[in-house]
Amino acid sequence: MAYFDNAATTYPKPVCVYEYMERFYRESGGSANRGQYALAQTAGGLISDTRARIRDLLHCPVKQVVFTPTATIALNMIIQGIIKAKVKNIYISPFEHNAVTRTLYAFELENRIKVHQLHVNNDLEYNLEKIRYQFDSVKPDAVILSHVSNTIGLIAPVEDIFRCAKKYDALTIVDMAQSAGLVDCNIGMENFDFAVFAGHKTLYGPTGISGFVMKPEIKLPAVLFGGTGFESANQDMPESLPEKFEMGTINIAGISGLNASLKWIQEETIEKIYQKEEANRRELLDLLKEYEFIKTVGCVKGRKYVGIVSCLIDGISSDSAGRIFNERGISVRTGLHCAPLAHKFINTFPAGTIRFSVGYFTSEKDFAELRNTLKYISSEMC
Amino acid sequence: MAYFDNAATTYPKPVCVYEYMERFYRESGGSANRGQYALAQTAGGLISDTRARIRDLLHCPVKQVVFTPTATIALNMIIQGIIKAKVKNIYISPFEHNAVTRTLYAFELENRIKVHQLHVNNDLEYNLEKIRYQFDSVKPDAVILSHVSNTIGLIAPVEDIFRCAKKYDALTIVDMAQSAGLVDCNIGMENFDFAVFAGHKTLYGPTGISGFVMKPEIKLPAVLFGGTGFESANQDMPESLPEKFEMGTINIAGISGLNASLKWIQEETIEKIYQKEEANRRELLDLLKEYEFIKTVGCVKGRKYVGIVSCLIDGISSDSAGRIFNERGISVRTGLHCAPLAHKFINTFPAGTIRFSVGYFTSEKDFAELRNTLKYISSEMC
Repeated sequence: MAYFDNAATTYPKPVCVYEYMERFYRESGGSANRGQYALAQTAGGLISDTRARIRDLLHCPVKQVVFTPTATIALNMIIQGIIKAKVKNIYISPFEHNAVTRTLYAFELENRIKVHQLHVNNDLEYNLEKIRYQFDSVKPDAVILSHVSNTIGLIAPVEDIFRCAKKYDALTIVDMAQSAGLVDCNIGMENFDFAVFAGHKTLYGPTGISGFVMKPEIKLPAVLFGGTGFESANQDMPESLPEKFEMGTINIAGISGLNASLKWIQEETIEKIYQKEEANRRELLDLLKEYEFIKTVGCVKGRKYVGIVSCLIDGISSDSAGRIFNERGISVRTGLHCAPLAHKFINTFPAGTIRFSVGYFTSEKDFAELRNTLKYISSEMC
Repeated sequence: MAYFDNAATTYPKPVCVYEYMERFYRESGGSANRGQYALAQTAGGLISDTRARIRDLLHCPVKQVVFTPTATIALNMIIQGIIKAKVKNIYISPFEHNAVTRTLYAFELENRIKVHQLHVNNDLEYNLEKIRYQFDSVKPDAVILSHVSNTIGLIAPVEDIFRCAKKYDALTIVDMAQSAGLVDCNIGMENFDFAVFAGHKTLYGPTGISGFVMKPEIKLPAVLFGGTGFESANQDMPESLPEKFEMGTINIAGISGLNASLKWIQEETIEKIYQKEEANRRELLDLLKEYEFIKTVGCVKGRKYVGIVSCLIDGISSDSAGRIFNERGISVRTGLHCAPLAHKFINTFPAGTIRFSVGYFTSEKDFAELRNTLKYISSEMC
């Protein structure tokens, strides 16, 4: 088995993640933060430590970290929350995930918002001049930006775009599902209001734990309700953070795994992790280039990328090609990758592409297996 | 440490849960269900098997199982969904959790629904005659019922209430967070529309995985949106189940733990688990009765209970008493237990109670430690 689906979930995880998660949950897996007893305090301590590590990683020492089960739920809480707070004109990139676009669409249908697309040139450059022109013509109430496209791996210049958006007093939301822990980025405390992270992707943690950081002074209305172990008599959600957005039982099993992975990232360093993934991306691109029948898409010189590569194979649909890879033990993902907008932008809609995504743990064995399969496809095509 | 907070989360879990979860996630923790490759297929198989086990447990072979991260999110999806579908008059029990009441309250404030309380006698009997009278006077569009009160452990006669509600064509929603896997109950396929379960409570699974079963023919509007790895071009949520309600990455680490705990429940049998918890509850009650300064509340002869006991201590507030217990290593939960309505009903609002909750794994050692602490409190009070 060769795993090239790290953009869906990184696999494997650092060994410390499996080990620490199992041990912590076995030894201290009582109810977290909702009791005064020692077990609850231990779990509470782990949660606080994990919040601090997220703040460190994202260079936002005074921001509030909120844990959610998935990045999708985090995005729903933020997007539905700002719409409840009467945001109207929302700009997005052409690379947004369905977690963003489907959520927006539900409210577009009700005519409650208007969605605009940030101008990106055909050569995949975010055109800041034209974006300023767009903002002048329709003032942005909010800008939602995938830091990294899950389809082609393109890194967006989030710092520049948000600096510009802030001149128009827009709320700024960055989806770092494919970048937190991988692309070091200091957006500037004042320039971003919300940053969403996914524990099981570039943070190398387990499934079931994600979240967002937010400026604590923002009054985001709650869209999900429940018990907070706190102010129980109040039938409104409490205004205190993070409780307002952490209703229900927090996933302490997941947080223990995320805590271990954040320690691992700190030890490895984000720079080294990126460099290793970049080296793996180069090796992947070199390998794919050996075969004329493979055409990579969305890969432009001069742009910055993470280890996600989309491609097409001459004469074979992406789905059929995917089947060949998968049957031969090469884990790839084909189709639209929950990002139809991105595929429209790169002209691969609706058939989609074959997506290879590497990670820190992609190995020479993975590449050797991929090479064998490419040779096999090549021989079949002759 | 003596753990009497099983109503918050059961602890410890069966050893097989920790072991299987760690092993499965390490060996097969790729992306589930969203690829054609072997790892995704293995994970997909585990998910299907887990759904089948939930259906078996709840005696609903043809119902749809939907996984959600928490029971709170499941309840939000169902309650907000039926309100979107124009449900107006909603009946609840006096024992509902804030996951239900806070969600309802947000829509009551907007005058979109009216909430009524099912008639329960002072002796904690659900008065079916009066409930029928209530339904005659204001027709129920939906009835939401906690199968088991998380505050006093009372088991509601859900079969009778839902049979009655169905005569009025009401939607019926049972919150089984404190009962699934513990209280065997065959509500009857036709009589319930939604049943919510919490993986980490009476199902003895890990945190981060819960869900609901539903009649597949019900058209429940989506209230959370995101990628489904499926029909990605469609900007509406797909109508197919369970995809419509399982947006985002499913918690395969959590599901593997839940799968192991469901196997464990099947092997132990639900009857034996209930009997063991009931024996532990008896032992707890006998122990508490030895001390005159302790007064159990909400405990009425002739009613059925699970292992949750609320009590008060003469002359000490619940919070102070809780501190004494917790400082001496007895894990209890004090206050309102996210269920202010229940405390109003049993006249312990707003100070709340001290809640002891036992489980299958409550041991003689736990009771011995509790006995020592009760002796200590007793001596301090003299």
